Amino acid sequence: MTLSKKFTTSLITISLVASSIVGTAFASETTKSDSKIAVSGNTKNPKNIIFMVGDGMGPSYNSAYRHFADNPDTKEIEPTAFDRYLTGQQKTDPNDPKENVTDSAAGATAFSTGVKTYNGAISVDENKKKLKTVLEQAKENKKSTGLVTTAEITDATPAAFASHVDSRDKKDEIAKQFYNEKIHGEHTVDVLLGGGKKYFDSRNGDLQNKFKKDGYKVVHDKKSLHKDNSDQILGLFADENMPLQIDAPNKNPKLVDMQKAAIERLEKNKKGFFLMVEGASIDKSGHPNDVTGVMSEMNGFEDAFKNATSYAKSHPDTLVVATADHSTGGMTIGKGKDYVWNPDAIKSMKHSGSFMTEQIANSKSPKKIIKDGYGFKVDGNQIKVIEKEAKKLSKLKKDSSEYETQFQVLQDAVQKPINDKSHTGWTTNGHTGEDVNMYAAGANSDKFKGLIDNTDNAKYIFSYLKNK
Amino acid sequence: MTLSKKFTTSLITISLVASSIVGTAFASETTKSDSKIAVSGNTKNPKNIIFMVGDGMGPSYNSAYRHFADNPDTKEIEPTAFDRYLTGQQKTDPNDPKENVTDSAAGATAFSTGVKTYNGAISVDENKKKLKTVLEQAKENKKSTGLVTTAEITDATPAAFASHVDSRDKKDEIAKQFYNEKIHGEHTVDVLLGGGKKYFDSRNGDLQNKFKKDGYKVVHDKKSLHKDNSDQILGLFADENMPLQIDAPNKNPKLVDMQKAAIERLEKNKKGFFLMVEGASIDKSGHPNDVTGVMSEMNGFEDAFKNATSYAKSHPDTLVVATADHSTGGMTIGKGKDYVWNPDAIKSMKHSGSFMTEQIANSKSPKKIIKDGYGFKVDGNQIKVIEKEAKKLSKLKKDSSEYETQFQVLQDAVQKPINDKSHTGWTTNGHTGEDVNMYAAGANSDKFKGLIDNTDNAKYIFSYLKNK
Repeated sequence: MTLSKKFTTSLITISLVASSIVGTAFASETTKSDSKIAVSGNTKNPKNIIFMVGDGMGPSYNSAYRHFADNPDTKEIEPTAFDRYLTGQQKTDPNDPKENVTDSAAGATAFSTGVKTYNGAISVDENKKKLKTVLEQAKENKKSTGLVTTAEITDATPAAFASHVDSRDKKDEIAKQFYNEKIHGEHTVDVLLGGGKKYFDSRNGDLQNKFKKDGYKVVHDKKSLHKDNSDQILGLFADENMPLQIDAPNKNPKLVDMQKAAIERLEKNKKGFFLMVEGASIDKSGHPNDVTGVMSEMNGFEDAFKNATSYAKSHPDTLVVATADHSTGGMTIGKGKDYVWNPDAIKSMKHSGSFMTEQIANSKSPKKIIKDGYGFKVDGNQIKVIEKEAKKLSKLKKDSSEYETQFQVLQDAVQKPINDKSHTGWTTNGHTGEDVNMYAAGANSDKFKGLIDNTDNAKYIFSYLKNK
Repeated sequence: MTLSKKFTTSLITISLVASSIVGTAFASETTKSDSKIAVSGNTKNPKNIIFMVGDGMGPSYNSAYRHFADNPDTKEIEPTAFDRYLTGQQKTDPNDPKENVTDSAAGATAFSTGVKTYNGAISVDENKKKLKTVLEQAKENKKSTGLVTTAEITDATPAAFASHVDSRDKKDEIAKQFYNEKIHGEHTVDVLLGGGKKYFDSRNGDLQNKFKKDGYKVVHDKKSLHKDNSDQILGLFADENMPLQIDAPNKNPKLVDMQKAAIERLEKNKKGFFLMVEGASIDKSGHPNDVTGVMSEMNGFEDAFKNATSYAKSHPDTLVVATADHSTGGMTIGKGKDYVWNPDAIKSMKHSGSFMTEQIANSKSPKKIIKDGYGFKVDGNQIKVIEKEAKKLSKLKKDSSEYETQFQVLQDAVQKPINDKSHTGWTTNGHTGEDVNMYAAGANSDKFKGLIDNTDNAKYIFSYLKNK
């Protein structure tokens, strides 16, 4: 099998994709109900769409989180906020000449444009041709639009909804497109909340100030976010990715805080809104196999999902979809011979493995960090291993590839006690290719039942947006 | 959290479980339609139930199999027979004092009785009290009944439908109960097809002959199975587990052959039938991390599922459910740094890792077995490792625990080339706790949508059987 022969999707316009593939059920429905769409609160075509991406949230993450979030004082294992909304799964394969496990760029492009593309592509097809996104279509329909993430706002997932570049690494260019691209003479995205401040500073055209001059409120902490109520806002809460919820200083907004702030602004528009919300650090904790970070971020993503479904209940013209782009790390519930997974060990952790490793890497004596980070006694020999690996790291030049490799070796040593105690298995520092879970609530959520393709998300949303 | 405090299900009778938990939707439906149930071909309460268990078939197995079964000559990745019938997932947790990842005994007891129990229990509750099974209820309703598996017919999954013992290891006792237990003066199971001949021989009361005297046809190969058309049959096609499909001699029936033979007999009963069909060696290949065996057995299970759904199409009073009891081995699609999983390498294999290891263990020169087994050139150094581990094994006493451990070391060495070449990751030789996929087709299959519990399978089926 030549992978390049797979998915050789020819470029077709989005309206064609939407109308031909979504099929007759919609075609007939929309013809009949064209007149009463969008502004009114009908439950056929949603007025508001909240599309949530738990980056890297493979099926085992959802099952593991149920054990983690369980109330130990009751007999049963309580359902998570996701559980009652499970509609099925989606396939995640990219259209890449060499790879058949997707990255977040190709995954988000599938969600946002309905087209499979190569890994690294930001809403361009395999020939690097620009593809229209659902967010852009929403803006064309005069809806309000928003992007919320715990990563840099220029990271692959948010980027793929409002920019078009041939490589996800071109973050300066992505930030510029956020500012420069206009629809009906207006900026494409009304609400931008996340990390990545460094892509908006003087080094990159002082985009923050340009947004400010155009009427956007620009904020850098939770307090300012809550005080303001302007329609358009750029919130940049970290230079790069935002810290994990378990490690974050109090001044940082959580994902649910940013989501609420976004909805408050977007819902002022009587034509409705499209909002993408990403729990990005589920993936960013999965890559280094940091189960503590994963569970912390799953908790943050669940809070945001709870808020979104609660909003959909009080606003029945709202569709909420939550899914993942792929799974990360090959995390398994159980490893070794015992048929046990122990979330209590993870619950007892005071900090993520990523945070502890970073602290140890920048400290001369890791003992206190170790003492403060774990909620249980760590074997003396394992502490010696951590110290040995930290020493090796201290001799390497930062930003070298050797440093990066050794940093992961140190992080593995830091996380061994918690992965062992919790019986959490991992197979890779990359992504894995299993189908991921679909959760949907509210208007037209039935459409997401069964097994769908990642591109179907965009196709369904485009079909709703056809009716302005 | 004390695990023993979880799931402390008090013992309630099955009819109570079924009526109280399945809820009002059924209660009202069944009241209205009591008179036209069972014999007629209504699509509300199925007359025939084919309950299929892909033992160990976690979500990653289903996704991986799609790549494995894909036709490389077409652009798209074709759906498997399962894909269009995905209804959701199920939770698999047992009620065990020490373990929260299920084994097949507790899993099958949940499927067959609707009650969570401890790992190792065969249709007895946590107090070792006997629990009624859906198969027994079907027999009480004068339906015909069958058990089909690629494992020993006395293995945990089939055992839990028609026997009651406090430990899955008591296989002699399980075989005896298959013979001794009667409902309306008849044997409980009309069709028994699988492995495990040794539990029916003179060593264990010559059960084969006893069944024969009571009118059962007893067969040991595919030819005899096909020649016969008696209503009741005991087919034992191996002393222990049946060989994997990829390695099996031609005289062996495949899973789909056994399933067809079972249905041909059972469907003669105008009151309908209950048939359990297990693809047992998906799990038995997953334990030693044998990806070739897993894909071979997934293929066999898919063939049987295709046949079952095809039967349900031509017999719309039939419900087909296919699911797993748990996942095995922590198998992941991808490992290491590359975002690639390569099923072609697996397709090129001539034999399973389990088969090759067994052959090598019983051979003085493994070179020919290696040459014949892989479909690609194996690195010379890796062959040396295999030879070294084989030599170590040859010095150990068979049936010792050291032999068992070293056998797995040898098997790991045999499988390293294929796991590496295909980029298949594994985290354990045991089970893992993620939710598993539900597939359902035919009469009342809608009931299985969303996220359900493993016990719900029995609860739903009991509710259908309430209407004799």
